Amino acid sequence: MEKYAVIDLLKNHRSIRKFTDEKLPDETIRMLVEAAQSASTSSYVQAYTIIGVTDPEKKKALKEISTQPYVENNGHLFVFVADYRRHRDLSEEKDAPINFHLTEQFIVGTVDAALAAQNLAVAAESIGLGICYIGSLRNDMAKVIEILELPEGTFPLFGMVAGFPAHEGSVKERLPFEAVYHENTYQHLDETKEEIEDYDERVSAYYKERTGGKRDDSWSDQVVGMLNKKQRLDVDEVVKKQGFLGQ
Amino acid sequence: MEKYAVIDLLKNHRSIRKFTDEKLPDETIRMLVEAAQSASTSSYVQAYTIIGVTDPEKKKALKEISTQPYVENNGHLFVFVADYRRHRDLSEEKDAPINFHLTEQFIVGTVDAALAAQNLAVAAESIGLGICYIGSLRNDMAKVIEILELPEGTFPLFGMVAGFPAHEGSVKERLPFEAVYHENTYQHLDETKEEIEDYDERVSAYYKERTGGKRDDSWSDQVVGMLNKKQRLDVDEVVKKQGFLGQ
Repeated sequence: MEKYAVIDLLKNHRSIRKFTDEKLPDETIRMLVEAAQSASTSSYVQAYTIIGVTDPEKKKALKEISTQPYVENNGHLFVFVADYRRHRDLSEEKDAPINFHLTEQFIVGTVDAALAAQNLAVAAESIGLGICYIGSLRNDMAKVIEILELPEGTFPLFGMVAGFPAHEGSVKERLPFEAVYHENTYQHLDETKEEIEDYDERVSAYYKERTGGKRDDSWSDQVVGMLNKKQRLDVDEVVKKQGFLGQ
Repeated sequence: MEKYAVIDLLKNHRSIRKFTDEKLPDETIRMLVEAAQSASTSSYVQAYTIIGVTDPEKKKALKEISTQPYVENNGHLFVFVADYRRHRDLSEEKDAPINFHLTEQFIVGTVDAALAAQNLAVAAESIGLGICYIGSLRNDMAKVIEILELPEGTFPLFGMVAGFPAHEGSVKERLPFEAVYHENTYQHLDETKEEIEDYDERVSAYYKERTGGKRDDSWSDQVVGMLNKKQRLDVDEVVKKQGFLGQ
């Protein structure tokens, strides 16, 4: 393997949103999940579960939530779930109740699941598959819980579709290195204002070119516009109902 | 590149906790951070910052918090920070206040940072470096915030040390595939109880062999024992003080 081959692979990531009809073989799914499981996990706790959704009715219902057609059609749909339920069930036998309802455990479950997911994404791309994360399952978390029969002690974080790509996709430029990597102390926006302005111009030009001039919003416009709307207000209530973020 | 070379790399992950004195060159740090930035990000929001800690006083102070000697000595210390501060500062100019204080944004910031971190880990291991995540920075999150001068709108999630390995480490077996990967609906513990009992025995044997018989706790013993203790009770208060998890 060439020294920088993996770094090149990572830097070549793009989201794929159309897949061929070819199904992922069972042995590929297993290989991807095992690669996911090899990611680091906080104190060995492995506080997540991955649900593969193949039932057409369930895929259709999840697509209604996310509104993304690729959730229903083609590709293999994985849903990543923060999971302390198995620890809780094991703890009952040992008469040692666990404290998964603290904010600390919410972070651990979320991080554990995310590290596993990113390993799965890298593994998939390394064998020529394409992937797309589906955060839009959080449009209706309660419904996802119902569809996948997720018990108390668990909650769904996001989905991911992996499959044989039917388009090329394109790499979307990230924030300037200087804006994201700071040394020793936090550096405020005004220290890299110019770099972000240049970045905004490049993002705007990218959209303009790809949409034939129909869209030309900068990165700042896009993310501030999105974060200005109050979205997914029910997430808090749902995770609390599942037993998390209590005191 | 051989077809499964990257999957083999991922499955070969082990934590490295001792590093040689050799420093990571600046161009390597930049390469790793850029690989991290290439990870997927929710709605392009890129809600994280990575702080490289090189100041010996700061490293010493962070080591006091984590109690892990490798935080202070050798390796390059990265701290991953969930960050909506730059979005907030940008939003002020646009007179469009952002809603980063919702549970949804807490999830997005945590997931975005974790995906980037796992890309950094994979990139580092692919060029022969070793890594270790440092969740123990959450032993005193308020102090980490003080040391790194993290403003409202940000909070530290975890650290990672990356460097030239001074030991081999060993791969720690993960939960059985059948326990972690479910199809269509959540499968409760009793459906894979036997597989987890076998796993517990193998983990116990692994510890016994590596400690010359001094330690032989199973996976279940270890994680239930850990989760039974109330730890890091201040995390909730600290993240709220930084502006998160409000209504």
